[in-house]
Amino acid sequence: MNKTKHLIEPRDFTIEELDELFRLADNIIASPKNYLDVCRGKLLASLFFEPSTRTRFSFEAAMLRLGGQVIGFDDPSASSTSKGETLADTIRTVGCYADIAVIRHPREGTAKLASKHSPQMPVINAGDGGHQHPTQTLTDLLTIRHYKKHFDNHVIAVCGDLKFGRTIHSLVKAMSRYENVKFIFISPDELKMPAYILDELHDTAYTQTDNLEMVIDQADILYMSRVQRERFVSEEEYERLKDYYILDNLKLQNAKEDMIIMHPLPRVNEISDEVDDDPRAVYFEQARFGMFVRMALIMKLLELEV
Amino acid sequence: MNKTKHLIEPRDFTIEELDELFRLADNIIASPKNYLDVCRGKLLASLFFEPSTRTRFSFEAAMLRLGGQVIGFDDPSASSTSKGETLADTIRTVGCYADIAVIRHPREGTAKLASKHSPQMPVINAGDGGHQHPTQTLTDLLTIRHYKKHFDNHVIAVCGDLKFGRTIHSLVKAMSRYENVKFIFISPDELKMPAYILDELHDTAYTQTDNLEMVIDQADILYMSRVQRERFVSEEEYERLKDYYILDNLKLQNAKEDMIIMHPLPRVNEISDEVDDDPRAVYFEQARFGMFVRMALIMKLLELEV
Amino acid sequence: MNKTKHLIEPRDFTIEELDELFRLADNIIASPKNYLDVCRGKLLASLFFEPSTRTRFSFEAAMLRLGGQVIGFDDPSASSTSKGETLADTIRTVGCYADIAVIRHPREGTAKLASKHSPQMPVINAGDGGHQHPTQTLTDLLTIRHYKKHFDNHVIAVCGDLKFGRTIHSLVKAMSRYENVKFIFISPDELKMPAYILDELHDTAYTQTDNLEMVIDQADILYMSRVQRERFVSEEEYERLKDYYILDNLKLQNAKEDMIIMHPLPRVNEISDEVDDDPRAVYFEQARFGMFVRMALIMKLLELEV
Repeated sequence: MNKTKHLIEPRDFTIEELDELFRLADNIIASPKNYLDVCRGKLLASLFFEPSTRTRFSFEAAMLRLGGQVIGFDDPSASSTSKGETLADTIRTVGCYADIAVIRHPREGTAKLASKHSPQMPVINAGDGGHQHPTQTLTDLLTIRHYKKHFDNHVIAVCGDLKFGRTIHSLVKAMSRYENVKFIFISPDELKMPAYILDELHDTAYTQTDNLEMVIDQADILYMSRVQRERFVSEEEYERLKDYYILDNLKLQNAKEDMIIMHPLPRVNEISDEVDDDPRAVYFEQARFGMFVRMALIMKLLELEV
Repeated sequence: MNKTKHLIEPRDFTIEELDELFRLADNIIASPKNYLDVCRGKLLASLFFEPSTRTRFSFEAAMLRLGGQVIGFDDPSASSTSKGETLADTIRTVGCYADIAVIRHPREGTAKLASKHSPQMPVINAGDGGHQHPTQTLTDLLTIRHYKKHFDNHVIAVCGDLKFGRTIHSLVKAMSRYENVKFIFISPDELKMPAYILDELHDTAYTQTDNLEMVIDQADILYMSRVQRERFVSEEEYERLKDYYILDNLKLQNAKEDMIIMHPLPRVNEISDEVDDDPRAVYFEQARFGMFVRMALIMKLLELEV
Repeated sequence: MNKTKHLIEPRDFTIEELDELFRLADNIIASPKNYLDVCRGKLLASLFFEPSTRTRFSFEAAMLRLGGQVIGFDDPSASSTSKGETLADTIRTVGCYADIAVIRHPREGTAKLASKHSPQMPVINAGDGGHQHPTQTLTDLLTIRHYKKHFDNHVIAVCGDLKFGRTIHSLVKAMSRYENVKFIFISPDELKMPAYILDELHDTAYTQTDNLEMVIDQADILYMSRVQRERFVSEEEYERLKDYYILDNLKLQNAKEDMIIMHPLPRVNEISDEVDDDPRAVYFEQARFGMFVRMALIMKLLELEV
């Protein structure tokens, strides 16, 4: 792990490094009080060039719960780049104040660019445009590991906007590294999984359908996703597709008893409120795991131990 | 206090619970260094869906002075609700990261709604529309208790915008629980105390007037309030009434020597600057008590002791 | 130093007090771990009435690295002054919550006004309009002291916008207090050093030129500055002058080997990226010294020692 100073893409970590990270996360979950001071004297720069309250909260809570501190902004207009400064200079200056940085930016590749100009300070990509959001993938993996104990031999049904869903693309790539994982891709035709993702999978590793009810009984994991208004060109198109697949108790009747229902949040209405009380619904716990995996990540990148 | 997990309305606490809270605040004021670590490892979520710097500062300073930490926003557009998320989901997610939440929202009833979706995390109402602002009431009560030693047998003159003044309505309700408290309501006709507040008081418990100078000599406590521009329909009406009652040294000539002058701040010009040097002016100390009572409140809701 | 409760202008400190401050900064740089708790239980109010992410980060990082905490805003519209409150009241209220305040404001004289209404809480000027920015001056001085060991007998070439450059005016005034310091002022005619600055210098203490290359070999210190778009009346005028003096490796050929290149940052393009790799380029280190000198400043104003 010593060479990997940054986390830009989910595949920046090997499977072994991921295992190490998740074991650390498990320890933190089991005994959070042991980690209250591990980042004492360390500073996280939280650089949100576009707002994302949930992700920002998760990172900041992670750092603060490790005894570290946070400086940051969540408003693009607040940064010096509005005075004509390059991103490279911004990152180099932030590196004078902070020990580790989290960057969220609407432009693809920004986090990678930032990491190139940060020889000392680890940079974490918290989402760059429609491209990568690796800590969401870590969150999803830790959640699966927690409830399913391992990553192999699962059937994962992924439902919703599979075309634009950055989170889902990363999850599929990450899970495809494990043994005998099968995917069921459920979406309307207009929002199907892109060819460049399918091309990376074995033909036998996935099926595609537009009918959630028909396949739900096969799934060990059901990953629902939001149809994001901001990804659509027209409001009409959005309105027509957004309610296409809504998960409710009726649809869940045929699902396995130990299936888990995941969602990256925020949801709009793709999961009915009534599902929240179903023991298979783990999406709020998933958010909690997101904080814990970020705690582990910060410790790893800063090479800290208890 | 174990059952009261949230503070939504001033009456959420019994008189006994209030006494307990104020005794704790007294202890904090007397020995702040004893409380430097009491919230170590705890996280406050500061959720300001409308800006209110003063209230936000007071809560955040309270948490930080207890050794806790803070995550938050003070801009409605920054929150996930702008992505179509319900308040219920926002609160449940925040509950994955934080130990206690403060919520300020322009819509009445929001804090109550939030508390219903927060089974684990205490929620504090920091103001919801024109409705409730219970920690301001706690602030006012602690201030009165500090300077007057008890709550009974006082004459409280309340002056200014009595129609829209949320703070004043709460204070009147809270003080009316104590023995032999008399109110003098001083306002122009257009901004008189609403009937539904008066209906809760004994007929002998209050008098109404439009003349501050005539009654100031009777008051043990003079509570001045701001005529808020944002409560008026027309700018004209605001301009006509805003300077109606301005407290200055001349008007104070007939006031009791041990009267205290309170104000929830910010003031515009309803108290002349010259009054600031009068020993009876306690409105800045009042702001300080606001921080201390919030420290006590956070401790109580988190069930922490030193 | 006991009398100087505030830092409003660079000359608020005597040369002896500056020496003391810089010695403390040296100690912090040498052993930062000794200072991790020195501000425990102390609160900094970071009041940015105009955004300045870099300066804000530097102050907040300074306070947090001393073990203190921060409350603040970086948006004028968020403050109570937008409800008609006077600055005096804002500062007095902040003084109820915080132990020390940093204020940045677009209007000249604001920090001084604030300090007059803050009898207990030290106020630091983080920039008021085109007027003063004393902690930038402290940053510059600490940087010079670090690389040059002393302040006397240097030739300082100052290049760029000398007319509007607040930072430069302060630096020139501050350096002119030391023995045998010579200035070379390099600028286009339109952006020459104002007469009221020149009047404070001996005639023999400076020369003026519009040609950077002709004089660069004489300099011990080269201070480059940004031509700020916001200081120009017309966009045309800005475009014509902004690229007038760009420092690159070619121009540096004749410079002394131990010359240092400084810049207050952010830069736009007045220093080519290729210069960053030159060992004489110290402008990012300068930003780091800015944090350390602010740590020393906070300690001095709060009268704290380790």
